[in-house]
Amino acid sequence: MNFCSDCGQPVSLAIPPDDNRLRHVCAHCGSIHYQNPKMVIGSIPVWNDDGRVLLCRRAIEPRHGYWTLPAGFMENSETTEEAALRETLEEAGARIELQGLFSLLNVPHVHQVHLFYRARLLDIDFAAGTESLECRLFSEAEIPWDDIAFPTVSHTLRSFFADYAAHREGKPFGFHSLDIRKRLRE
Amino acid sequence: MNFCSDCGQPVSLAIPPDDNRLRHVCAHCGSIHYQNPKMVIGSIPVWNDDGRVLLCRRAIEPRHGYWTLPAGFMENSETTEEAALRETLEEAGARIELQGLFSLLNVPHVHQVHLFYRARLLDIDFAAGTESLECRLFSEAEIPWDDIAFPTVSHTLRSFFADYAAHREGKPFGFHSLDIRKRLRE
Repeated sequence: MNFCSDCGQPVSLAIPPDDNRLRHVCAHCGSIHYQNPKMVIGSIPVWNDDGRVLLCRRAIEPRHGYWTLPAGFMENSETTEEAALRETLEEAGARIELQGLFSLLNVPHVHQVHLFYRARLLDIDFAAGTESLECRLFSEAEIPWDDIAFPTVSHTLRSFFADYAAHREGKPFGFHSLDIRKRLRE
Repeated sequence: MNFCSDCGQPVSLAIPPDDNRLRHVCAHCGSIHYQNPKMVIGSIPVWNDDGRVLLCRRAIEPRHGYWTLPAGFMENSETTEEAALRETLEEAGARIELQGLFSLLNVPHVHQVHLFYRARLLDIDFAAGTESLECRLFSEAEIPWDDIAFPTVSHTLRSFFADYAAHREGKPFGFHSLDIRKRLRE
């Protein structure tokens, strides 16, 4: 950020009164431009007949060609559940029924919080949207672990399959929270 | 938003290619300025000796003079749990141990998602921070329901006391998700 989005003049970094962090402040009009984490919301769409999960292969950067759960940035004026339904429809053309929040993953170095909801696929007439190369159902054994786009997705999938197995023995699904820190280079 | 924060030229509303929503777009440098919901993170600090909850009376607008749970906007580069700890320390001078995510409240008309964590007060040497007029422990019977600052806080407190009573009879705490829509004027 170099310029004030309210008046177009240059901004500078300063700690405002009653604050303790550097912000982009406009000396011309006084606006303070806060920057906050973004939410990425997705679903874990399960075909209940056999427990397979729907993944999408990304047609966009970052991680073009890698597999992901349907997910994307939450938009203004929608709820987290509406975001999960919308992203699943947009990326996978899939209709789902949400079944509860399953995971929350903090990714502080990219200023993101990812939420995934468990979901029941209502049918298997899904079809790749413009941001997906293809969409496919995977059993746990078929998951392409080396080709998953993001650690938030692989952690969510591993927790999901563990809980799914336990659920078949009568245990409830858990809620899984994890912080994913930047990997240090060797 | 009137000006591009990258180049300082005027922005206009347009639907970018491969998008389906109006965004602030800069015709000069091509930047697209997305706007997304903000997260408000707080805690429910409980003094375990007697089950009282710590509330803060707001010294700032909006809702100056009304009572709230310690909470505030999540900052870049922190996790949701770090935000809950920080806000509780800043607003109430209170040291807590977090005990799990308790509530998620969507407030789509103000583009916010509120999260509250259950928490155990480590001591009762709390003290109002600069954004609080005073801080006090309240039993359920003492809660000033008519003077609570925000519906996300009153819903969280009601759910908490219900779960706290059930917990004393051996039931686990739940996770509570609620959408709070704009009230229609009569």
